[in-house]
Amino acid sequence: MPHSTPAAISAELAAFMVDSEWTALPASVQNEARRATLNWLGCTLGGCRDDTTDRLCATLVDFAGPPRATLLGRGQSSDALSAALINAVSGNVLDFDDTHLATVVHPTAVVAPALLALAEQQRSSGTEFLHALALGIECACRIGNAAGAAHYEGGWHISATCGVFGAAAAAGRLLGLDATQMNHALGIAATSASGLRMMLGSMAKCYNIGHAARSGLQAALLAARGYTSSARGLEARRGFLHVLAADGADAGAVTRELGTQWEINALAYKPYPCGVVIHPVIDGCLDLRAEHATDATAVASIEIDVNPLAIKLCGNPAPRDGLEAKLSIAHSVAAALLDGAAGVVQYADARVRDPALIRLRDRVHLNADPVIGKEQARVRIISASGTTHELFVPHARGSRGRPLSEVELDTKFRGLAGGVLAPAQIDTTLGVCAALESCADVGELARAAAGLPQEFFTS
Amino acid sequence: MPHSTPAAISAELAAFMVDSEWTALPASVQNEARRATLNWLGCTLGGCRDDTTDRLCATLVDFAGPPRATLLGRGQSSDALSAALINAVSGNVLDFDDTHLATVVHPTAVVAPALLALAEQQRSSGTEFLHALALGIECACRIGNAAGAAHYEGGWHISATCGVFGAAAAAGRLLGLDATQMNHALGIAATSASGLRMMLGSMAKCYNIGHAARSGLQAALLAARGYTSSARGLEARRGFLHVLAADGADAGAVTRELGTQWEINALAYKPYPCGVVIHPVIDGCLDLRAEHATDATAVASIEIDVNPLAIKLCGNPAPRDGLEAKLSIAHSVAAALLDGAAGVVQYADARVRDPALIRLRDRVHLNADPVIGKEQARVRIISASGTTHELFVPHARGSRGRPLSEVELDTKFRGLAGGVLAPAQIDTTLGVCAALESCADVGELARAAAGLPQEFFTS
Repeated sequence: MPHSTPAAISAELAAFMVDSEWTALPASVQNEARRATLNWLGCTLGGCRDDTTDRLCATLVDFAGPPRATLLGRGQSSDALSAALINAVSGNVLDFDDTHLATVVHPTAVVAPALLALAEQQRSSGTEFLHALALGIECACRIGNAAGAAHYEGGWHISATCGVFGAAAAAGRLLGLDATQMNHALGIAATSASGLRMMLGSMAKCYNIGHAARSGLQAALLAARGYTSSARGLEARRGFLHVLAADGADAGAVTRELGTQWEINALAYKPYPCGVVIHPVIDGCLDLRAEHATDATAVASIEIDVNPLAIKLCGNPAPRDGLEAKLSIAHSVAAALLDGAAGVVQYADARVRDPALIRLRDRVHLNADPVIGKEQARVRIISASGTTHELFVPHARGSRGRPLSEVELDTKFRGLAGGVLAPAQIDTTLGVCAALESCADVGELARAAAGLPQEFFTS
Repeated sequence: MPHSTPAAISAELAAFMVDSEWTALPASVQNEARRATLNWLGCTLGGCRDDTTDRLCATLVDFAGPPRATLLGRGQSSDALSAALINAVSGNVLDFDDTHLATVVHPTAVVAPALLALAEQQRSSGTEFLHALALGIECACRIGNAAGAAHYEGGWHISATCGVFGAAAAAGRLLGLDATQMNHALGIAATSASGLRMMLGSMAKCYNIGHAARSGLQAALLAARGYTSSARGLEARRGFLHVLAADGADAGAVTRELGTQWEINALAYKPYPCGVVIHPVIDGCLDLRAEHATDATAVASIEIDVNPLAIKLCGNPAPRDGLEAKLSIAHSVAAALLDGAAGVVQYADARVRDPALIRLRDRVHLNADPVIGKEQARVRIISASGTTHELFVPHARGSRGRPLSEVELDTKFRGLAGGVLAPAQIDTTLGVCAALESCADVGELARAAAGLPQEFFTS
């Protein structure tokens, strides 16, 4: 039995965001908010010196306001709205951030940067931050559930279009909005929602994420100043769900079992910096290579059976650079078999253009099989001599069926932060994050992960 | 015969924006760019001290960068991105800005504020400004033509969704982008396009315009720094036109007769600060009232025949405040018959709540007639004694069939600027605008219209 009538979905969601109490959250939710923070922070440090982030910073430097929010890993600060945008791009550029698999929403990539920038400016506590983060992630994922496949298939970059609501809700919570203001914040988010999926493969992909983070934070700030919008931005006949998801939207999913069913518990953390639907394929390749000591140069053919969505998203047989390679099963297979790894270096431009890798890549064949789940894959490696090794991966590493452990998350963070923070800073950041619930000022986390100044930003 | 294949629309549009020469533009286009500037400037001064603008400024003051662009009528400056947003909201809040009737796009409201903020910062000449403005308006209106009714009927606020391209193109022109960069700017604009039509009637309506102005300017600035996007943001299978206008889009309309047919020549300037589809109705009411000395208190019934779109957009029979009244035929009819005017004061909250006006408003009956054009109306006033007066308006004042004269435009400007600028400043502003083509630094125009500082902005 649904808890809400379709007439009041925005209002009910807003009231939940305002009334929620930290102590009433399940321990699993509280814990996952901390894990999501750590994973996001690592991804942001890994991406903070990417060329994409550099160009964004160089663009904004002449327009940014008083420096009150840290640009993570860049050793400088900016105004919170600019910091939300920049840190969001840093956190998404490597395609290493978390995923809500049911919707393919990457919620933390949008919510966390908007929230941390605001939290640092207003010296919020660690618990306030974790609570608002959990609520914002919940908001983004639930709207993703409601918009559903019709929205994604329609061409929308769902992490951005649904993430903007999460950023608005999280920031609104931290600003102490009342239920009416929160509803207006959601309405302003609805009318700010943008981002085309076709931008995947160009710098504009992570701009979508950054633009959503900035727009969501701005929506909450506006609502706090009494700025108004429609009170039914989600469910109205011409609201977000109908206009951007047409008749495919299940509006009731936004508030169904709200407060009892938590979507944050469904987050998956990536072990590889590429499209999440490629992960089970990489698992299969790495495991077969390890088990059979596969000689990649003697491989005649590699047959990959995957869910049709994986081919739709990542079927590119000939990526031209690292950005495109992150969305290429063929490249990932070849790199995993040649290198025995699928890390940041395997998606560098130079690796993508290696002739030996390209030769192997051209031997990869993809088969769509709707019976295979999105976190599953079957890999068959056929050698020149005719030997065939086959492996079915039932749960990708990092998926809900095989979640990353605390140690694996720490290891991932250390790997990503290693090029940006000194060893002592890494330890400090991990320590602050582990004890975030007892941290009086979450700005400590941002400052621990600040890193050294980047010359490019001073342009 | 179309000039372009569907495969290269974004690229062809970008090349046109880059290659266009001022001296090759028809004199009518050059002149209309100046008229559009003057009309927009007046609307901006009229709206610059609205509560909506105040709340926006109060929100942004803590986040704004170095003051290099004037906040028109507010006596202060801000960074160009914030100024673009704020001035765009000022210029649209009164619903008094220009209209491209074929699409109901209000192009200058988005393009001009983005452009003027940038032009002031980089001290562009008046001709450079007018040229870029004409190109940006052309871009927005042509994309509106291509997206067409399917887009608008789908629930999109077309001025914002198409305006963002215009702002990007105009700013990109002023930044001297090459054709590839301009194409990327258009792509970033495509993935930034947002704005729901349902927000009309709340503060979020003009936020859509402001958000588009800021996003468009930011898209051009990013492209100038080498930020990339899809090169086929408009026409690709999952590009703007397909995702936001589905199969209703006529992609070829973007570039058809580009450079020979100019949409800027189709701009209409409003004589009344309300939805443009209400204008012929007001004309009819004012003319009948003047001709027959109508006693509004003795009116039994008013029958209005209009295009169905007018009722869809402005059929609200009982607006609760000034914002809603701007989109209400019934209110406009009652106010015009009672006051003999339809100016800013007729759309003030207090006027909307006047019991005598509400009594007359309730006697207004609307009939949809698809034979009647969007700039036409038939008004029948039936008195308590049974006398009927009827008038058919073939061309609304301000429409293409009955354009506002130079004198009417000056008068409109003086009326709007009167509450904000001193008389000498008004004369100076009109003088700079009239001679814009010979102005060495368009910042003169912004500074002439700066007005006195607003305390609220210092919050």
